[in-house]
Amino acid sequence: MTHVAHARFYAPGLQPEPGRLVVLSPDEAAHLAQVLRLRAGDAVRVFDGAGVEFAATIETAGRTAVSVRLIDQIPARPEPRVRLTLAQAVLKGEAFDQVVRDATMAGVRAIRPVLTSLSTPRAGAGTPIRRLERWRRVAIASAKQCGRATLPAIDEPIDLGAWFARDHSDVRLILAEPASAAAVPGSLAALRDHPAPPSASLLVGPEGGWTGEETATALGRGVVPLTLGSLTLRADAAAVVAVSALFTAWDAW
Amino acid sequence: MTHVAHARFYAPGLQPEPGRLVVLSPDEAAHLAQVLRLRAGDAVRVFDGAGVEFAATIETAGRTAVSVRLIDQIPARPEPRVRLTLAQAVLKGEAFDQVVRDATMAGVRAIRPVLTSLSTPRAGAGTPIRRLERWRRVAIASAKQCGRATLPAIDEPIDLGAWFARDHSDVRLILAEPASAAAVPGSLAALRDHPAPPSASLLVGPEGGWTGEETATALGRGVVPLTLGSLTLRADAAAVVAVSALFTAWDAW
Repeated sequence: MTHVAHARFYAPGLQPEPGRLVVLSPDEAAHLAQVLRLRAGDAVRVFDGAGVEFAATIETAGRTAVSVRLIDQIPARPEPRVRLTLAQAVLKGEAFDQVVRDATMAGVRAIRPVLTSLSTPRAGAGTPIRRLERWRRVAIASAKQCGRATLPAIDEPIDLGAWFARDHSDVRLILAEPASAAAVPGSLAALRDHPAPPSASLLVGPEGGWTGEETATALGRGVVPLTLGSLTLRADAAAVVAVSALFTAWDAW
Repeated sequence: MTHVAHARFYAPGLQPEPGRLVVLSPDEAAHLAQVLRLRAGDAVRVFDGAGVEFAATIETAGRTAVSVRLIDQIPARPEPRVRLTLAQAVLKGEAFDQVVRDATMAGVRAIRPVLTSLSTPRAGAGTPIRRLERWRRVAIASAKQCGRATLPAIDEPIDLGAWFARDHSDVRLILAEPASAAAVPGSLAALRDHPAPPSASLLVGPEGGWTGEETATALGRGVVPLTLGSLTLRADAAAVVAVSALFTAWDAW
């Protein structure tokens, strides 16, 4: 059945009280007033990125300032039952944007950009900050579109070694290409036979794949190899395929 | 472990006999000689799109004609154990190309473009043929990249009603938006508890979703609703997420 969805806007830190007036950020105000051309009195929704969603009414929709009045809190769409961190090797060009968009849609709770031997994170001064800001904007846009009230955390890229030290998920997995030496056929079926962990993390490599040293280091630290089928997944699509498989294997959607 | 993959080329109808000389199509010849700049004597692989793959050596690599000599047949990468047909509503612009690329990578056996009430398949004279040719080229490129030796069949778009009459898969599913009236939470978990069928088909809707009438018609014909989680999937990404989930639920990768 088709349904007309209300436009949704991101309002971090909103006070969850009916009747409150919330001023939107310039980005969100522009989306509301200039792109969607909504007006005072129109019904919208706002969410805070931390699981709170409200029905609201536009109070003012000026060229530079938009405010909305909170009406009633609405149950946010449920998050997947496994808190999944995607540790994704930095990719070239816009491929990482696509991963952020799809992983946000699929319900990942955190995205940790990882620098690997075969990543090519060349960037001039100042660029890393702009890149991180862009990724966060991509996640916001995706959350708005897919009805999600929770945003994944996204950090600055860190080295793979540093990531091993910082990640404390209950289960840690590394996506191993079916054509690589680390491939483990049947690894997904094995996961299906275990109860879903409260939290998990998944390492997904760059275009050139993991080096033998990186894979060996991961396995030495107890990271479990995961192989999906026999086909080579494109770097920009591997994460969403794997996240979908994991949530299905764990019945965690 | 990183690995250097041989470049792969599509050679439909090749005679699977070592020593045979195979002349590549103009598209494949251009990719080999002009894009990858391979030369006579270089090792490559060729596949016929029907599951046959050969190691081969370039015999001649001219500007307009390329031939390769078959050496040994190589085991093709295994296909998923469920023959899955993706019946995808036609999408706008390049979104359908993306679906074809990802579905080929994920191991779908056939892609049936479907015209629905909310599809917008406006096309001038001659365009439908060019569109079908483009989809088939996208599938070839994806199969080359992901190591697949089998190409999905892709047909001209047909009406949803005609599709119901033509599809005879053992299990037929329709992806139902979590925010729609047809949504069935837990439907994926139910699938996991049944043995994998030999064949299945999956209906995925257009940007505007299925109409209530279309959904009712499908359910009336025994098509089973499938809902993945609580988030709304983008039309261009829904298929690959659902295919990954189905192959995982059926342990069919």
